[in-house]
Amino acid sequence: MNATPTQAEPCVLRVACDDQPGLITGITGLIYRLGGNIVENGEFVDPAQARFFMRAAITGLDDDAGLRQGLGELLPAGAEIDLDRKPRKSVVILATRELHCLGDLLIRAVSDDLPMQVNAVIANHPDLGDFVRALDIPFHCVSHEGISRQAHEARIAELIDGHQPDIVVLAKYMRIFSPEFVRRYRGRLLNIHHSFLPAFIGASPYEQAWKRGVKIIGATAHFATEDLDEGPIIAQDVVPVSHTHGPAEMARSGRDVEKRVLARALRIVLERRYFVIDNKTIIFD
Amino acid sequence: MNATPTQAEPCVLRVACDDQPGLITGITGLIYRLGGNIVENGEFVDPAQARFFMRAAITGLDDDAGLRQGLGELLPAGAEIDLDRKPRKSVVILATRELHCLGDLLIRAVSDDLPMQVNAVIANHPDLGDFVRALDIPFHCVSHEGISRQAHEARIAELIDGHQPDIVVLAKYMRIFSPEFVRRYRGRLLNIHHSFLPAFIGASPYEQAWKRGVKIIGATAHFATEDLDEGPIIAQDVVPVSHTHGPAEMARSGRDVEKRVLARALRIVLERRYFVIDNKTIIFD
Amino acid sequence: MNATPTQAEPCVLRVACDDQPGLITGITGLIYRLGGNIVENGEFVDPAQARFFMRAAITGLDDDAGLRQGLGELLPAGAEIDLDRKPRKSVVILATRELHCLGDLLIRAVSDDLPMQVNAVIANHPDLGDFVRALDIPFHCVSHEGISRQAHEARIAELIDGHQPDIVVLAKYMRIFSPEFVRRYRGRLLNIHHSFLPAFIGASPYEQAWKRGVKIIGATAHFATEDLDEGPIIAQDVVPVSHTHGPAEMARSGRDVEKRVLARALRIVLERRYFVIDNKTIIFD
Amino acid sequence: MNATPTQAEPCVLRVACDDQPGLITGITGLIYRLGGNIVENGEFVDPAQARFFMRAAITGLDDDAGLRQGLGELLPAGAEIDLDRKPRKSVVILATRELHCLGDLLIRAVSDDLPMQVNAVIANHPDLGDFVRALDIPFHCVSHEGISRQAHEARIAELIDGHQPDIVVLAKYMRIFSPEFVRRYRGRLLNIHHSFLPAFIGASPYEQAWKRGVKIIGATAHFATEDLDEGPIIAQDVVPVSHTHGPAEMARSGRDVEKRVLARALRIVLERRYFVIDNKTIIFD
Repeated sequence: MNATPTQAEPCVLRVACDDQPGLITGITGLIYRLGGNIVENGEFVDPAQARFFMRAAITGLDDDAGLRQGLGELLPAGAEIDLDRKPRKSVVILATRELHCLGDLLIRAVSDDLPMQVNAVIANHPDLGDFVRALDIPFHCVSHEGISRQAHEARIAELIDGHQPDIVVLAKYMRIFSPEFVRRYRGRLLNIHHSFLPAFIGASPYEQAWKRGVKIIGATAHFATEDLDEGPIIAQDVVPVSHTHGPAEMARSGRDVEKRVLARALRIVLERRYFVIDNKTIIFD
Repeated sequence: MNATPTQAEPCVLRVACDDQPGLITGITGLIYRLGGNIVENGEFVDPAQARFFMRAAITGLDDDAGLRQGLGELLPAGAEIDLDRKPRKSVVILATRELHCLGDLLIRAVSDDLPMQVNAVIANHPDLGDFVRALDIPFHCVSHEGISRQAHEARIAELIDGHQPDIVVLAKYMRIFSPEFVRRYRGRLLNIHHSFLPAFIGASPYEQAWKRGVKIIGATAHFATEDLDEGPIIAQDVVPVSHTHGPAEMARSGRDVEKRVLARALRIVLERRYFVIDNKTIIFD
Repeated sequence: MNATPTQAEPCVLRVACDDQPGLITGITGLIYRLGGNIVENGEFVDPAQARFFMRAAITGLDDDAGLRQGLGELLPAGAEIDLDRKPRKSVVILATRELHCLGDLLIRAVSDDLPMQVNAVIANHPDLGDFVRALDIPFHCVSHEGISRQAHEARIAELIDGHQPDIVVLAKYMRIFSPEFVRRYRGRLLNIHHSFLPAFIGASPYEQAWKRGVKIIGATAHFATEDLDEGPIIAQDVVPVSHTHGPAEMARSGRDVEKRVLARALRIVLERRYFVIDNKTIIFD
Repeated sequence: MNATPTQAEPCVLRVACDDQPGLITGITGLIYRLGGNIVENGEFVDPAQARFFMRAAITGLDDDAGLRQGLGELLPAGAEIDLDRKPRKSVVILATRELHCLGDLLIRAVSDDLPMQVNAVIANHPDLGDFVRALDIPFHCVSHEGISRQAHEARIAELIDGHQPDIVVLAKYMRIFSPEFVRRYRGRLLNIHHSFLPAFIGASPYEQAWKRGVKIIGATAHFATEDLDEGPIIAQDVVPVSHTHGPAEMARSGRDVEKRVLARALRIVLERRYFVIDNKTIIFD
């Protein structure tokens, strides 16, 4: 029940390199000479690192080889170039038992609100299976019970790889992956953490928030890295709470924030609106 | 240049005690029999502690002794009763060099936006003196240089006490007080911390936020306690930031949040809209 | 695939009447004498109309007849009393072609996030049928083509009434109902309007918003009344937009606001957290 | 008591012209050849009008004549070019009796939070005079009583022009200017309207908002035009309200929104972060 692909969209060029004079005019001039038209453009120079970042959405550009060759000539050594011509990315979603984030993403896929194809949902509990299969999306349940963590992760990785996703989304997948697993999907593994990081790192953040008596709770979508809850933040949002909220009510209010933060972050990733530098993101939206 | 007092407002009764059946009807019945009219009412029972909290704004009630006697008869042992008949509290504000919070509070005092009388401003730098004195408010500069922390605090406490404030506000006062000092003003010492606590406790929170690459920054107003940045939170708010914000831009965006969070918290305290239980607040607004 | 009912919850008493002294103590005393325990309480006196409103969530109260009789004796003439013992309301949802609001509500029903049973979905287009039926919820398509508006509404009313819903939700149902139809479901017909009312009343609000160059767009959930877009507002929320948003991008951003505003309003209605006075609502949440 | 000027900042180039291929590379190439370094850049093509907008903050560029000549050669006919080298603009503020917006702007000037010099404050009531003069800023009171509107406006215009401001800010100036007056300061006359336009156009917006029972109120900063409340919107923001807010409480909540929206809009104007097209703004921030 995934939506059918829409018509061809602009390609997206992302360039990251050490800053030097003339980069913007050099890159835009090259695109112009190749017949391309820049329909959306963002640049940023990180002052701490003197590093240049540029994202351009381009129509009318066919000569990928010419673009790459031209960029190779004008950019300094060590430049990272990403040219993306795939308007609809393929996604595999991992979940456990909660439907709010997963359901929201699947509805966005079905109604073409996010430019993606959901190839499969993998869970460590069977609860979400009926819902996912009802939408004609493959559902794999891989219980973690009775097998080693290593074996469990190996089975999940095998399933993920079988679906060849561009992006893997942890939509309230409530188990911690090993550093090896995270490295395997580095840069394309997205997680939603149910707190306003770096507040309330670790387990039971709503319980922690309630104990501290905060007046606002939040959610954080980030790239998963070996260091749990420490990866580059893509999007965050918050919602006010009060003394009438116990941990359960905070969790309920939090679910609405979680799902909208995750969807926003996923859009940023799908549309290639991000760069990662050190442990931070640059977002052009 | 403080505004003149407005006409008599309702008195505010706050009751906190162990929960038991019939408290609401008992208290409201007593008020009714004494001729009082409840114009605003809030109750809350903390489920974890089975403790009852009630705040009522009452008009037409003159018999304070009768109210206290009646409450003493119907409330369980250990009840805390606060009857407040002072619509305009007196305030002393401590600051260092930054004007945004202090200036905002003084304008609210001048224009009667907050029900308070600012008796004095005390700072450990002279920079803010011209502004404060221009508004005909006493300004005391007590430099911390060349004297012991103990002597510095003693001098400040002496000045504060000379002005007999109901509430002391730390409006970006950038020095840490000793536990003894904080205890002296316990329950009436309000602080603004320039982060969304408990994230970025301690020094240079905007620098910390920038390093972590957060997408939202915030501010927290709380009662000051012996444990720095750990006191009961009264109000919090946030503002979005992006990769274009360095620490200085985050601080600039943060100033606007700081001043509005501090003003909101001060209103809650001035209007007796709070209770403190353990390290948390209950806010009726 | 609706969730199974949860265990018994408190009953909710709502009282609206002309204000007079002693109402709170009278009502709470009555509840206390009947063995009830008030676990959540809200009162408000509308100063313009001198009208009293009270909502109480009560446990341990069995004697409905005694409560009604007691209220009848102590309340002034013309008092409105609503005692609600149905923790899970039945709902019929009307939609047209857009999935975002409908899908969000169905996921909330499936995952027990909202205390409701969705009895059926009725649409004037067939597009949403696959999704709804996949969740084992009855779907009725009633095309408006080729029949009179009167006949179309009669058929829809017949279907609605067959499902005996407590509440009818217009989840982006894109046709205007006649005053007769609206009156038939008065007080239990909820609509989501895709603008921050009263701005951009009528058709194509995102197009209107784009033409005016606003920097924020919003959504409004309200009770439907004979006057289109003029009914009592239950909930509103907004999202920032910029010059890069054309009407289509505004609509996309708006969808996320629409669905969360509608869900919030529906929770208020399901939990009986509202009163309507003239054309306004009083919300206790 | 205005802050002293800071050190030289980048110049800001703004270009608006009909769109055609090669504009970005042409303009950035010219800047590069003239030795300029673009430290911040924003472009936008309005799809409805096919019009190109670019704002660049540039360091190291001295040859203004060369820049203008080069732009003249590469841009299409009818291009608008604005090169701004004045980091600290001069401002005259008009007010009536309310201090919140005026006071906030003056504190921002004093503490160098906004890059401006406040040359004078002009009011039609004397109430704000003490506060303004205390900060050593000239204050002119021009009562509208006993003279014609034409004479009143002529006197105000004379005072404004005597201070030669770059920008004129209506900070809750509660009288309506004639179209002639507005035209005189067209493009540099900024107004704050106390509603979320286009909702509640005209007088007493908080009274209107209360009558309609809205759950959110807002404020709008816009360029003043001949059509009252219809000028290009620069910034908007909102705050939630509830049934407990009467018109006075809405106005109080609204004041905090008004002052932060006005300050944000003024920053956009001072830093030349805007374009006006038809009746809308393009904002690069």
